[in-house]
Amino acid sequence: MSHKMQTNLSRLQNDLLELSHIGYDLESKGIFRLGFTPADMQARQWLIKKFEDEGFSAHMDSAGNVIGSMQANCDKPVIAIGSHIDSVPAGGMFDGTLGVLAGLECMRVLRDSGQTYQYPLEVYAFAEEEGRFGGMMGVQAITGELTPDWLETAHDASHIYLKDEMASCGLNAVEALNARVDPTHFRAFLELHIEQGPVLERIGKPIGVVEAISGVYKWLVRLIGKANHAGTAPMDMRSDAFMGLADFAHEIPRIINEEGSDKSRLTVGRVELKPGYAHTVPGEAEFTLVGRDTDPQTMRNLADACRRVLSSIARKHNLMFEFEQMSWLEPQAMSNEVIQAFCHQADHMGLAYQVMPSGAGHDAQYMAKITPTGMIFVPSVGGISHAPDEWTHWQDVHTGANLLLQTAMAFASGKK
Amino acid sequence: MSHKMQTNLSRLQNDLLELSHIGYDLESKGIFRLGFTPADMQARQWLIKKFEDEGFSAHMDSAGNVIGSMQANCDKPVIAIGSHIDSVPAGGMFDGTLGVLAGLECMRVLRDSGQTYQYPLEVYAFAEEEGRFGGMMGVQAITGELTPDWLETAHDASHIYLKDEMASCGLNAVEALNARVDPTHFRAFLELHIEQGPVLERIGKPIGVVEAISGVYKWLVRLIGKANHAGTAPMDMRSDAFMGLADFAHEIPRIINEEGSDKSRLTVGRVELKPGYAHTVPGEAEFTLVGRDTDPQTMRNLADACRRVLSSIARKHNLMFEFEQMSWLEPQAMSNEVIQAFCHQADHMGLAYQVMPSGAGHDAQYMAKITPTGMIFVPSVGGISHAPDEWTHWQDVHTGANLLLQTAMAFASGKK
Repeated sequence: MSHKMQTNLSRLQNDLLELSHIGYDLESKGIFRLGFTPADMQARQWLIKKFEDEGFSAHMDSAGNVIGSMQANCDKPVIAIGSHIDSVPAGGMFDGTLGVLAGLECMRVLRDSGQTYQYPLEVYAFAEEEGRFGGMMGVQAITGELTPDWLETAHDASHIYLKDEMASCGLNAVEALNARVDPTHFRAFLELHIEQGPVLERIGKPIGVVEAISGVYKWLVRLIGKANHAGTAPMDMRSDAFMGLADFAHEIPRIINEEGSDKSRLTVGRVELKPGYAHTVPGEAEFTLVGRDTDPQTMRNLADACRRVLSSIARKHNLMFEFEQMSWLEPQAMSNEVIQAFCHQADHMGLAYQVMPSGAGHDAQYMAKITPTGMIFVPSVGGISHAPDEWTHWQDVHTGANLLLQTAMAFASGKK
Repeated sequence: MSHKMQTNLSRLQNDLLELSHIGYDLESKGIFRLGFTPADMQARQWLIKKFEDEGFSAHMDSAGNVIGSMQANCDKPVIAIGSHIDSVPAGGMFDGTLGVLAGLECMRVLRDSGQTYQYPLEVYAFAEEEGRFGGMMGVQAITGELTPDWLETAHDASHIYLKDEMASCGLNAVEALNARVDPTHFRAFLELHIEQGPVLERIGKPIGVVEAISGVYKWLVRLIGKANHAGTAPMDMRSDAFMGLADFAHEIPRIINEEGSDKSRLTVGRVELKPGYAHTVPGEAEFTLVGRDTDPQTMRNLADACRRVLSSIARKHNLMFEFEQMSWLEPQAMSNEVIQAFCHQADHMGLAYQVMPSGAGHDAQYMAKITPTGMIFVPSVGGISHAPDEWTHWQDVHTGANLLLQTAMAFASGKK
């Protein structure tokens, strides 16, 4: 029975460890494989060779995505598995790579099984998922979301242009448009990823089945009052911009209780007070407000409530209130068909799982626009990610890879 | 009758405007007479010449204080009037200078009156009141509060040493100790100053009689939680250091209601979040907390309450809490005798006045340790000070100078 088939953890471990050496920085003990850097390209070449050494075909497309295939001659749409292998600066060894290398392991298991499947597997290592250039460039190329204009002007925080970095990798930026794949090419897309949060560890379940990827908005808010001497200005004659911010932040739990859900997040992550002196009442408070929810209407309700509360607090504290919406990204639901397939297989395997949102963005949110897409999480120790001490226990890596395998096999065999 | 005697506003105006040109910066439209800079020394030489041109004696002591005297040969203790003529960077034309030049004007009026007085007047332009080197060096020299060690090590924010700046003015820092004046030299000290706050303008009274100079403490507080991805960390699994700070700041009005007085001030003026990214839950919040009150016990109660509330909020938000007390300066009451003299003269003159605290520090707080000391305020337009647009209406300047004159004459004649 196929439910007895398992991924080979030591093969997967070896691949993960081998890849973790590429771009490794001895001093920070972190991985530096930023999109389109030499280390990133070295990893992509390593991956192509890995596929080929196992007898699969593999190539890099014009956007830098690496695609490995088995049974490439069949005319059925493919079951695509994937994630990314680029990293943030000083990142960890599981973020993205797990979803790619577990896909490779699934292909090996299917190959070794000697069986034939109705739908072929493909594994995608998308380019530049971490957003060095402000997007998810690789998967956006495949799903047809790129524009020539963006490819021309995209640059990183150091004002290095995407097109120049691609050129130094032997790629022509504008040709990334040719990487688009017709949606009919795909039957489904499956992504295994580390959770990057504390939930699964806290509740003691090995698997999270993602129901939706949260939408997110980012505001830059300014409360403007009047800077005063902190000794000579009585409390009731101040226009203290920080006290306005504090009163707003204090209302965040109430705003979520009234307008949000257990999937809502509101975060003030950056605060700048002006003039910012100990002995001066702050005349201005500039801060970021990032809101998230998985439901589009709830997200709008949260944003409306934030604006109302800020307006009312500004009036109360005699402040001016202005904000700039830096970004607004709608939530992306995962496919019910794929969610159910993951849950069904997990039930068969006797795995405890949690249906949950993804608060972080993933390649799956773009693939979901063109094909039935689902995503599973495995626990992150301490919730830590994007850091050298990112870790997932090998037992959990194995469990996640096995659930990915069973679900991919179910799709590949046309049964689910 | 002496109550008909008045200061000459146009003489006082001329002096204020003339002095405002020394250290004036055309670009910022502010005055730069930081302690022991060439502009500061130029102002002191100008002031000495001013006294001498009027027929008074004047000298600079070994700490840089300029002292002008009349009737210097009498053996009675002196009625001292004064303030300072150094400025903050880009300061205004009234802060300190008004108290000095109004003192000079009082001496002129008394001289012109042809009367003789029981107690002689002296006018003090204290050195370095604005604290470039972290103290009120001139008045501390006169009241015997300096130490050789401090004079050796005091430096400004750019690490320029006091002793080097004094040397470039031809002064030997250690000799500042010789500027100490025996308390028996003084009968009383009177200071006229702009309010530097909004109270008098708001309540529509031309005079504030200072009852006490607030004590002040400054804490550097750190709340330490855990930095997390703002998407993947659910609200109830966070240790958000900023939310702890916001909850504390929200409690400030309650803390003052329960433990403080209408003279209490609590200010969070500087905030730094780490890592300070929009998409990251702040793992650390470092902020300044400055507390003030005119009553020593109330100030201790406020501080105790802040510590208790911070501890309790830290526990609630799962944060570590630590603080460093950067400074603690006790409140300084003004002399009842001088307060009553000011009020008595104001009543005689038919002036509306407000008995009020001084939230800012002044030379008077050191003079109060050695002689009966009092202080009056005149309104600051918009409460603004320490800035180029510091302003006090000439009518108010005149009223303040006249009350200073009447009170000085009352002390000088032994009547009060």
